[in-house]
Amino acid sequence: MIRTISAGLKQGVLKRYISSNVGLAPTIKEQLSNPPAIGSVFEVRGFVKSIRNSKNVGFLDITDGSSSKIINVVLVGKGQPRFQVGESVRVKGEWNVSKGKGQENELKYNPQDPNHAYEIIGAVPEDYPLQKKATSMSFLRTLPSLKHRASTIASFYRLRSFLETQMMDFFNNYSFTKVSPPLITSSDCEGAGETFEIKSAQEFFEKNAYLTVSTQLHLEAVSLALNRAWTLTPCFRAEESKTSRHLSEFWMLEAEISYLDELEPLLNFTEEMVKYATKQLVSRKNEYLEGTYLDREVIESRWSSILGDWRRITYNEALDELNSKGASLTFGDSLNLDHERSLAENGPVFVTDYPASMKPFYMLKSTNYDKDKPTVACFDLLLPQFGELVGGSLREHDYDTLVESMKKNNMNLDDMDWYISLRKYGTIPHGGFGMGWERFVTYLSGHDNIRDLVPFPRAPGLCKA
Amino acid sequence: MIRTISAGLKQGVLKRYISSNVGLAPTIKEQLSNPPAIGSVFEVRGFVKSIRNSKNVGFLDITDGSSSKIINVVLVGKGQPRFQVGESVRVKGEWNVSKGKGQENELKYNPQDPNHAYEIIGAVPEDYPLQKKATSMSFLRTLPSLKHRASTIASFYRLRSFLETQMMDFFNNYSFTKVSPPLITSSDCEGAGETFEIKSAQEFFEKNAYLTVSTQLHLEAVSLALNRAWTLTPCFRAEESKTSRHLSEFWMLEAEISYLDELEPLLNFTEEMVKYATKQLVSRKNEYLEGTYLDREVIESRWSSILGDWRRITYNEALDELNSKGASLTFGDSLNLDHERSLAENGPVFVTDYPASMKPFYMLKSTNYDKDKPTVACFDLLLPQFGELVGGSLREHDYDTLVESMKKNNMNLDDMDWYISLRKYGTIPHGGFGMGWERFVTYLSGHDNIRDLVPFPRAPGLCKA
Repeated sequence: MIRTISAGLKQGVLKRYISSNVGLAPTIKEQLSNPPAIGSVFEVRGFVKSIRNSKNVGFLDITDGSSSKIINVVLVGKGQPRFQVGESVRVKGEWNVSKGKGQENELKYNPQDPNHAYEIIGAVPEDYPLQKKATSMSFLRTLPSLKHRASTIASFYRLRSFLETQMMDFFNNYSFTKVSPPLITSSDCEGAGETFEIKSAQEFFEKNAYLTVSTQLHLEAVSLALNRAWTLTPCFRAEESKTSRHLSEFWMLEAEISYLDELEPLLNFTEEMVKYATKQLVSRKNEYLEGTYLDREVIESRWSSILGDWRRITYNEALDELNSKGASLTFGDSLNLDHERSLAENGPVFVTDYPASMKPFYMLKSTNYDKDKPTVACFDLLLPQFGELVGGSLREHDYDTLVESMKKNNMNLDDMDWYISLRKYGTIPHGGFGMGWERFVTYLSGHDNIRDLVPFPRAPGLCKA
Repeated sequence: MIRTISAGLKQGVLKRYISSNVGLAPTIKEQLSNPPAIGSVFEVRGFVKSIRNSKNVGFLDITDGSSSKIINVVLVGKGQPRFQVGESVRVKGEWNVSKGKGQENELKYNPQDPNHAYEIIGAVPEDYPLQKKATSMSFLRTLPSLKHRASTIASFYRLRSFLETQMMDFFNNYSFTKVSPPLITSSDCEGAGETFEIKSAQEFFEKNAYLTVSTQLHLEAVSLALNRAWTLTPCFRAEESKTSRHLSEFWMLEAEISYLDELEPLLNFTEEMVKYATKQLVSRKNEYLEGTYLDREVIESRWSSILGDWRRITYNEALDELNSKGASLTFGDSLNLDHERSLAENGPVFVTDYPASMKPFYMLKSTNYDKDKPTVACFDLLLPQFGELVGGSLREHDYDTLVESMKKNNMNLDDMDWYISLRKYGTIPHGGFGMGWERFVTYLSGHDNIRDLVPFPRAPGLCKA
């Protein structure tokens, strides 16, 4: 059934794309970013997304997933082949002005025209499961191989890729170095026991080894040498959370910045980063919006919420605010998801200076440290209807204070000597943050379930393929 | 010892950098990419890298790791403070034309000038281990916290970050989507048993789970939906190889391309990718070369070797060539590292169409398939004095042929149904490759030991921090 595809490239298709330079067939994204002249012969490859038939004319929608764009094929003339939804095909026809209102141009295919041609590259059985354009997410989750072809799912992947490109530019502009801290570690960062352990690590590594829950500690070591460092890297948490906001394997964007002894520049930087990527997205919003079947109003309201004004309040101010709305919280109480959403009701909010007792050992004391209500120089960024997106802090950079804090937390100082010693050899005040990457993409996508954002999600009881 | 650093920013330092927009102290990279006017007050932060004293004048070299650049500080006037190598410091002085030949401009610090200031941010004990500018790699390996501050090591990290940026641009240009296949998987990709296993996975995931050795199979599923997909992702191999070319945890650049039924465009694309990143590096070569103490001739010869002509030979032609030089290889024999280096003696070489028996189940048969000497449409890219950098192939896209090949390999078809079924629902001829990311960076860096390229290397018996 398959013939040499690149032969198609050599026959009658004159347009040169970057792909042609190496002999690859162009993607639809390439082709439509530099469309052919009206009336010229044009050849596309992709999946048949939908089929419509009227009395004398048939219509095919073809997409290849390289962008949200769909090629509308108009089938005219006698002797039409039968296409099926889901087939991968190649169609060569004439590029025409569309007669439909507000439509893109279309590809006219006529079996009677000797310059036109088609090929069914890959057939489908009758039970091909993705028959409809829009399909429910819960149904798609049952299709680990095919769900990636659904428009909305594919649009998530392209969105993620786009946002990663923006982050690369952003961090390069701020003279960060992107680095790769280890994922297998003998240091249990949060000491929470919610880590995956490597089987038989004693035999292989001669010590117990875990999958990292956060690369922060290692990233600090590198960033203290390079002034600034960031990473976008997998992290793993063996939490028994079966919510739409948690994955057992997820990616985290982490950044560490040296010569930083106030929280404010760190908040400024975080805000700038989130807004930068969002602005870039908004400037090319149609690319995303055309691909998704999610509610456009929800999407655009999230975007404009991010681009609006952000509040900054301390934990103590947050308690006052929540108590004035009927809560009865006292210093040391955690904020739950409802509290967080209430605080972020009208826009993103940084909540800073949480009680030291609620936070890990490595955080620096707050500037206005009150020993009766001890707080640390940290922040959570909360988003409307969503909850926490980013968490960060200044890191304790004084050797003695850090050792004291680790003793209080019953940590093994020998195991952590590599980390502590950074404070002995030319210490630098520094701080940083971690942002759940899938959470960020989920929020901007307009979706609510983080599990649909990744091709093969891992969660308790869930490890398909 | 620490005061508000950002205060320094507000006093007398007029230059605006992007960092100042958010209230961060600028990096030296930022400052030197837009240097201050001669005669103006200028403030830098970094580590004291070296100290020289002559009769009336002292000299400090300060670097912050954001680039390879060093700020030369000239200490003039009475009442000079004592600096120590390894301290983190802040020095404010006057930006001056250097009197040294061929030198960059310099920072003049005079304790008598009321506009000048300094601060020891982080002190060091007398035994600070990085006293010398150049230090042996074997010594640095004993310093998991501090080795990152060594010029050559830091230059590796910056090189890696630079190359990753170039790859992002390259793949975006070819309309790829960057995706994140899972690292925890229930499919053992190569079936080799050299995988790390997750402890207690049965309890958590309700099935055995492993760390992926290659994301290819999952990447195929996604790329068949998006036309083209790539990833730069950690992979894990529990091989007992203690060589300078292997890591137990490493990153792999993998790409899959749809609508591909010949090897040639895949070779073209791979060559283009490797040359693209190298060209970008060469166009900014001083940034890397200034930071490293490795042999400049070795580095530049590797770069020019990549930018030169590449050969393409089949496995059978490789046997003939090696046999004519004295080897006695017959069809089915592996090529060892010496063979690979011999083939690549005069430049990079693609060796294609290896015997099917040497390669995994998923490879497509060669175009000139000979059933007495069955080969597959695959390639290894071999580099001079180095060995394999990239391995790739066309993937079997026919359902029946794939199932037959898996049965021959005694694979569990039920477990792999998600993968096989891709061939049933609109299959597409496709192919791809994997490139060991650290190997690529190692080669371009001019270094030979892959373990020094990553901040915290993992290998048998090696899991520090």
